[in-house]
Amino acid sequence: MDAAAYPATATTTPTRHAERARYDRQTVYTVLDEALICHLSYVRDGRPVLIPTIHARIGERLYLHGSKGAAVSRAATDSGLAVCIAATVVDGLVLARSAFQHSMNYRSVVLHGTAHLVADDAERSRALEAVVNQVWPGRSSACRGPGAKELRATSVLAVDLLEVSAKCRTGDPVDKSEDLNGPWWAGVVPVRNAYGDPKPSANLGPDRPAPDTRAAAAGS
Amino acid sequence: MDAAAYPATATTTPTRHAERARYDRQTVYTVLDEALICHLSYVRDGRPVLIPTIHARIGERLYLHGSKGAAVSRAATDSGLAVCIAATVVDGLVLARSAFQHSMNYRSVVLHGTAHLVADDAERSRALEAVVNQVWPGRSSACRGPGAKELRATSVLAVDLLEVSAKCRTGDPVDKSEDLNGPWWAGVVPVRNAYGDPKPSANLGPDRPAPDTRAAAAGS
Repeated sequence: MDAAAYPATATTTPTRHAERARYDRQTVYTVLDEALICHLSYVRDGRPVLIPTIHARIGERLYLHGSKGAAVSRAATDSGLAVCIAATVVDGLVLARSAFQHSMNYRSVVLHGTAHLVADDAERSRALEAVVNQVWPGRSSACRGPGAKELRATSVLAVDLLEVSAKCRTGDPVDKSEDLNGPWWAGVVPVRNAYGDPKPSANLGPDRPAPDTRAAAAGS
Repeated sequence: MDAAAYPATATTTPTRHAERARYDRQTVYTVLDEALICHLSYVRDGRPVLIPTIHARIGERLYLHGSKGAAVSRAATDSGLAVCIAATVVDGLVLARSAFQHSMNYRSVVLHGTAHLVADDAERSRALEAVVNQVWPGRSSACRGPGAKELRATSVLAVDLLEVSAKCRTGDPVDKSEDLNGPWWAGVVPVRNAYGDPKPSANLGPDRPAPDTRAAAAGS
């Protein structure tokens, strides 16, 4: 096994488009660090539950931001909560000659694991700092840090990157040879997140310079 | 109950930020129609599974595109599969004075239900057409439609919009009064999908005009 790669397990080997699977850490890290949000699923009373949430990665651990009262935080107490987490970045719309071959270019990471509530105050502080910097690079040093009461009101879930994989589609549509001479345009329309001009709060006082949008956009 | 609204059930009433919940059809439709992808979760061997996928809505039914061989399609045979589906659109990064109040402006829809494989050929055709038009507005009439063999190789999952709700955060960061005079900038950085110039397939012949990016971007 490549030391820089995660193992391919029965759970992380796709049943479809296995050629799109990626197990190298760099791909997994890039997708997790670039995605603005992730989706978290768990089982409640035998049924699936799914919520969008913000996240941040530190090394081999993914942190999810929550609050003490949230159902998922309560469910994760004690022995932990079985979760599946996905972060997906759409890179392009794949317009093929045939309806059947339409697709998206994307990079997604799926993480299976057990979520635990972070009990250690120092680790919770680091995780929250990382989450703020995921919202906006460098932002944790451009705002007021959390007070003791705020830290206590926040719950942080942690999941280790053990059973994890990425799936990536890139490139042109894959059309049948008999369609190639058809009259249709085919190709890819690139998609990315675009950041608009920062809009100050209605109650913002004077002389607080806005963050530099372009720097953040380039880093994401 | 408002005839234009979905009922708020125990499942669709959030435990946190209940003030962000929306049950009106227009909000639910807009989010489902605008999101490029959704995430689908189900339970396999007692554990949660989560996959990103493309979708389309027709009236009160959400369709998910799959293939005959996919694990989720096999699981949905016969009596159907309990699923939870989320579509999320990020509208802005909420930069507050305090780390604690950082957030995102977003609109998300969460749908709980039972997914059934669509058996009817005509319905499956309509659903695939809608999925292609979700990738690119109007595209189903600018490409070759599916042949009988392609239709047979495609599976379409359908979930009715019965137990569904939206959750929306909008507006400025909510800062504590004692933070308002601090030195930090606060506000929202707008986020949207930006579409780049269409990139033709390497094997595209001459005289196939590219789709109009701006029209599609305006419609999404």
